[in-house]
Amino acid sequence: MLHKHQSHNTMTYPTDFYDAAQQLIAAGRFIDSKAWVPATSGNFSLRLADGTIAITVSGKHKGRLQTSDIMLIDAEGRSLDGKKPSAETLLHTSLYQHFPDIHAVLHPHPLNSVLISKCYQQRCILENYELLKAFPGIQTHESQLIVPIFANDQNIARLANLVNSYLASVEVCHGYIIEGHGLYAWGQTLNDALRHLEAFDFLFACELQLKGMKPL
Amino acid sequence: MLHKHQSHNTMTYPTDFYDAAQQLIAAGRFIDSKAWVPATSGNFSLRLADGTIAITVSGKHKGRLQTSDIMLIDAEGRSLDGKKPSAETLLHTSLYQHFPDIHAVLHPHPLNSVLISKCYQQRCILENYELLKAFPGIQTHESQLIVPIFANDQNIARLANLVNSYLASVEVCHGYIIEGHGLYAWGQTLNDALRHLEAFDFLFACELQLKGMKPL
Amino acid sequence: MLHKHQSHNTMTYPTDFYDAAQQLIAAGRFIDSKAWVPATSGNFSLRLADGTIAITVSGKHKGRLQTSDIMLIDAEGRSLDGKKPSAETLLHTSLYQHFPDIHAVLHPHPLNSVLISKCYQQRCILENYELLKAFPGIQTHESQLIVPIFANDQNIARLANLVNSYLASVEVCHGYIIEGHGLYAWGQTLNDALRHLEAFDFLFACELQLKGMKPL
Amino acid sequence: MLHKHQSHNTMTYPTDFYDAAQQLIAAGRFIDSKAWVPATSGNFSLRLADGTIAITVSGKHKGRLQTSDIMLIDAEGRSLDGKKPSAETLLHTSLYQHFPDIHAVLHPHPLNSVLISKCYQQRCILENYELLKAFPGIQTHESQLIVPIFANDQNIARLANLVNSYLASVEVCHGYIIEGHGLYAWGQTLNDALRHLEAFDFLFACELQLKGMKPL
Repeated sequence: MLHKHQSHNTMTYPTDFYDAAQQLIAAGRFIDSKAWVPATSGNFSLRLADGTIAITVSGKHKGRLQTSDIMLIDAEGRSLDGKKPSAETLLHTSLYQHFPDIHAVLHPHPLNSVLISKCYQQRCILENYELLKAFPGIQTHESQLIVPIFANDQNIARLANLVNSYLASVEVCHGYIIEGHGLYAWGQTLNDALRHLEAFDFLFACELQLKGMKPL
Repeated sequence: MLHKHQSHNTMTYPTDFYDAAQQLIAAGRFIDSKAWVPATSGNFSLRLADGTIAITVSGKHKGRLQTSDIMLIDAEGRSLDGKKPSAETLLHTSLYQHFPDIHAVLHPHPLNSVLISKCYQQRCILENYELLKAFPGIQTHESQLIVPIFANDQNIARLANLVNSYLASVEVCHGYIIEGHGLYAWGQTLNDALRHLEAFDFLFACELQLKGMKPL
Repeated sequence: MLHKHQSHNTMTYPTDFYDAAQQLIAAGRFIDSKAWVPATSGNFSLRLADGTIAITVSGKHKGRLQTSDIMLIDAEGRSLDGKKPSAETLLHTSLYQHFPDIHAVLHPHPLNSVLISKCYQQRCILENYELLKAFPGIQTHESQLIVPIFANDQNIARLANLVNSYLASVEVCHGYIIEGHGLYAWGQTLNDALRHLEAFDFLFACELQLKGMKPL
Repeated sequence: MLHKHQSHNTMTYPTDFYDAAQQLIAAGRFIDSKAWVPATSGNFSLRLADGTIAITVSGKHKGRLQTSDIMLIDAEGRSLDGKKPSAETLLHTSLYQHFPDIHAVLHPHPLNSVLISKCYQQRCILENYELLKAFPGIQTHESQLIVPIFANDQNIARLANLVNSYLASVEVCHGYIIEGHGLYAWGQTLNDALRHLEAFDFLFACELQLKGMKPL
């Protein structure tokens, strides 16, 4: 039983774990400064060089993370240091398996993402914005960025399957929304993933405000 | 008369009073950073180990509290250090009496709470939000959180009676709104109460913006 | 001519001028943090013990004031230190003449005040808000606070006359709006005037958002 | 080939380049604090005494610029230090050629500018705002400020020609919007250009919110 609930005092972490933890703490402060992780919502992860994953533990305020709030899991989402991973860990590991070149997954609960999920059915299509170029492979505002919206589900395995089926069916996906819940975005680096968060929030804000203005 | 208006220089506070005061000062700064206590509105309290209560005095800006702006009252709301408690003290002590396991009560005036109280009659029902899980006992977005709205009343004893009757009539309540006035929220710890404030504000913002979008 | 355009190097200021200047600088930083003085808009003043007035000079950003950006005028608005007072100085001196007990006048350009002036004719009536109690003499939310709205006018003497006539015709006034321009608020102390600014902005935000929601 | 991709270690910059770089870094922090440069959007420049131009390089976050993120170009937009200029450099150099007295050009992507471009055809006319006086040559709120809106175009030479034709056809222009993209503003000094940004954003916010309120 000791192995299963191994003390993290005696745990030997990969050498890049500590740097990853500091990066996640700083990212959490930035994301909280935007009010995108109200209460203790959200979770963030970074894939390390050896394929293990540094991820935030469950139930902490993401704007005030400490090193001990970051844990290590394997590629299947199993705890490697005895700490309790978030219920949504499977959504992170699925993304890392589907996209071999990404190293960061961010899941905040921005108001605009939640509102988009309440106003749109199944997907939100973003087009004719210069800021679309913030996403890899997009060279012109005359592009379409499709953001799928999945129904919320407390059964995370079932939700992960739904997401995986979608990802298998499309050529490109830069992020998705879970209805009434929040946004998943990712990137090759943490900075890329943060850039995508900023771009998504700006574009969703545009869409929402234009919806509100349409009757004029 | 000396006893009734005892100097607080000679007052002996419980040992956990000073820590509670520092916590309330920090909470005030956070709450003010969200613009939830405009002007000198709002009041906050913490129940101490001996059952007495540390509470903000009347008429101070809650974002710039000093230790001398925190006073001590007994469980019935009587001043124990000669300072003048807020007129709304009775609403704090009622909550502590009704919920034996809570230790923090926060009463800010967030714009969203006031707007909710102007748009809804008697209660606002929150459902289908992942963030509902920020409240104790809620395990799924498929839950209903009912927030009662009471008419404002300068007669605080009468208002407290109304609140008490409501609380006696329901199994669960995580917060209430006074119309055109503000929000009351609470928790087992100050951090719990702050988490509830963040969650309420996010959920009220969602509801208000969805109301504004409905005609589209 | 030396007397008229006296160098401020040789100027002897009242002893409370320097403290007033520091207070105005701090108030400017706070007011700018709320985005109430975009560009170089707005002006602020404090009446000193001898009846002279410390006031911001023309054309500076109010969020980054320096001591040299505060000048001294007499009760009629004449420069006492050779610096150039704002064109709107007369609106400050008029208020000090009308209200013998006030010592601070703040004139920011908050978005909400400008929007109120575009949505309402002649006056905005605020009622049924607990926050009305932030203003002196108001003991209950069941009060009416009338905020007059005056047409903008580059002829400040003419505008000051209009304001004076209004003030002479009413028993109570806590602030006024100039249409498409900004808000004038005041108080016995600078803290009182700042409290009124916060309260006005909150109340105007409520009114505007409720207007936006009415069709629902 | 060495000349074409000359190392910037051996580059001799004009003496005022380093001060310009620090000013652009500070301006970027301010502009980002307003959320006007989401992701890595936007670019800023300053014209130096010798007619060369310090400008931000492509692809950096404008709120976290470092000295090495500022490069030197000539008046025609050619790199003088081997660094890669933004694709939109030509829009900066065109403005410097058209307005001999300006020394700063700022191109952020503020949400309000993008929304204005989605709600208005060809131009937005601002009138009856006191804040119009933030722009040079405007003495009264009874003025009209016309902000042209150009269709977005990834062909920057073609877009620059369109802008040049417009500028040649009017007597006054203080800024323009590219549809779904962002704002271009300028000034004799960087402070002037920043003042114009603040004024534009306030005025656009007014217009947008008034549009949203019209049905009432």
